[in-house]
Amino acid sequence: MNVAAIREAARRVRDIVVTTPLKPAFDLSERLQAEVYLKLENTQDIGSFKIRGAANAILKARETEKFDHVVAASSGNHGRAVAYVAQKLGMHATICMTTLVPKDKIAAIERFGARTVIFGDDQNQAVEKALATASEQGAVYVPPFDHPDVIAGQGTIGLEMLEQQPELDTVIAPVSGGGLMSGVAIAVRELNANVEIIGVTSELDGAILESIEAGKVVMVQERPSIADALPGPIPLDNRYTFEICRDLVDKIIPIPETSVARAMRYVLDHEKMVLEGAGAASLAFVLDQGDELRGKKVGIVCSGNNISAERLRTVFQDFGI
Amino acid sequence: MNVAAIREAARRVRDIVVTTPLKPAFDLSERLQAEVYLKLENTQDIGSFKIRGAANAILKARETEKFDHVVAASSGNHGRAVAYVAQKLGMHATICMTTLVPKDKIAAIERFGARTVIFGDDQNQAVEKALATASEQGAVYVPPFDHPDVIAGQGTIGLEMLEQQPELDTVIAPVSGGGLMSGVAIAVRELNANVEIIGVTSELDGAILESIEAGKVVMVQERPSIADALPGPIPLDNRYTFEICRDLVDKIIPIPETSVARAMRYVLDHEKMVLEGAGAASLAFVLDQGDELRGKKVGIVCSGNNISAERLRTVFQDFGI
Repeated sequence: MNVAAIREAARRVRDIVVTTPLKPAFDLSERLQAEVYLKLENTQDIGSFKIRGAANAILKARETEKFDHVVAASSGNHGRAVAYVAQKLGMHATICMTTLVPKDKIAAIERFGARTVIFGDDQNQAVEKALATASEQGAVYVPPFDHPDVIAGQGTIGLEMLEQQPELDTVIAPVSGGGLMSGVAIAVRELNANVEIIGVTSELDGAILESIEAGKVVMVQERPSIADALPGPIPLDNRYTFEICRDLVDKIIPIPETSVARAMRYVLDHEKMVLEGAGAASLAFVLDQGDELRGKKVGIVCSGNNISAERLRTVFQDFGI
Repeated sequence: MNVAAIREAARRVRDIVVTTPLKPAFDLSERLQAEVYLKLENTQDIGSFKIRGAANAILKARETEKFDHVVAASSGNHGRAVAYVAQKLGMHATICMTTLVPKDKIAAIERFGARTVIFGDDQNQAVEKALATASEQGAVYVPPFDHPDVIAGQGTIGLEMLEQQPELDTVIAPVSGGGLMSGVAIAVRELNANVEIIGVTSELDGAILESIEAGKVVMVQERPSIADALPGPIPLDNRYTFEICRDLVDKIIPIPETSVARAMRYVLDHEKMVLEGAGAASLAFVLDQGDELRGKKVGIVCSGNNISAERLRTVFQDFGI
């Protein structure tokens, strides 16, 4: 995959996806003696970058197939994204999730007119249910990250960042399944080979990081993190994101929980917005280890804001901040 | 003035001003049984719409005059906007303000490389100092609201809103000096005569509202409000904004302090962002009196986020929310 596919994705999704601001972070820039910019994916309609990959995957499939029903397995931003894009396009959506999912997350997906199916007690079962549903009902399954069209959709973030600030020296983004990072890395690397690409992940997880260290895709135990969009295994049959991240990302940094919590507090106090843990993880790296960025132009992907007010208060209380 | 001047402004400022997202507010839409959209001016580089008018006024002046120094009298968003635009254009800026201005506001302007001049103890004296400085030093004075180029700059918000959602039935924006509302009203009214235009103001002030009720520009006593960008007199020599607001705005609603505070809490909890009081005032109207908006497509201008974390906490504490 290359930047041409990402440019094509940008054209394809332009009626659904927002060209989000790349906002200078003045306080952070002063602290670091750098020029720091925040890519505000929290200002997408659904508050998360996931709409980019979902929109590209669905719209691209429609160019060759006839269907009016999409299926996904996700209780989070990907599920919301697929439901929202389907609603915008006048299509049906079925979103499968496990019995562990809290009611408010189900409601946040049903709000967009999607049917929800609760099945099994781990994510693999929800995925199997989604694949079976798609197959039975002639619907299209939209994978969360490990698919070229999803990766190309997320890559439009990298394209926009370098259009908005062509002189970026460093780009920092969170890595979970690696779809976001793969797309961003492909776009950024091709447009400017000299940009340093840094990934961040939760110290409680890091499926891609551990796989890179092991030299092959490995299973990791999912543990609950504040950055709850970050943990989670990348299945052993991973075809794209592991290799792209291994080959294109300069380094991936595990971020401690306290640092994520502090970054969430920081971005609220100084940038006047709420970011979910995964969204704040890149900022956490910069706040903790920003010395190496001095004098540089740094673009940080703020991936989303999908955290409830209650959970945010709990995080701040738990960490005494 | 007409929409052509606003379109011209949009072209003129496009390298400095962000086309901000018009983000659907899902929770608010459900409450109101309406389609509510938020125009996120808090995502401008300086966190406020004021950059639009300042950029247009300075860039337009440069088309006919030669100068490298601009002057303004404002400790708030307008002062920051003029300082920031000057810095972006490689010009000098002098910002005059009264002795009452707290240190952090001075710092927030000096951050952008502007010289600050502290003079007098009311805003009129700061304005006189700014005019004198401009005259002595061959600099250009940038007025905060009552000038066609400033109004045209702010009007680009209305232009964008109707491009982003052409079917809006209602547009709501805060009214202080009336520059924002005048520009938005001119753009919206000309593009679609049927859109209802609603202004909101602080119940502790409302210079434009009281002037409209009196049938002429009147002086009002400034009283401190949570929406501290809203109060303040419009000078008796007002030439533009009073008449434009009187003629084009359907109604202007005074908003109680408690409602502003509640709206600031609401937007933080549900939209995951901080708005200053004036920025939240339009939302306060919708939360309090939204019944009349049922079934409509409503665009709300969220004008800025210039409030410190400490002040926000104090507001929430004071109102027990």
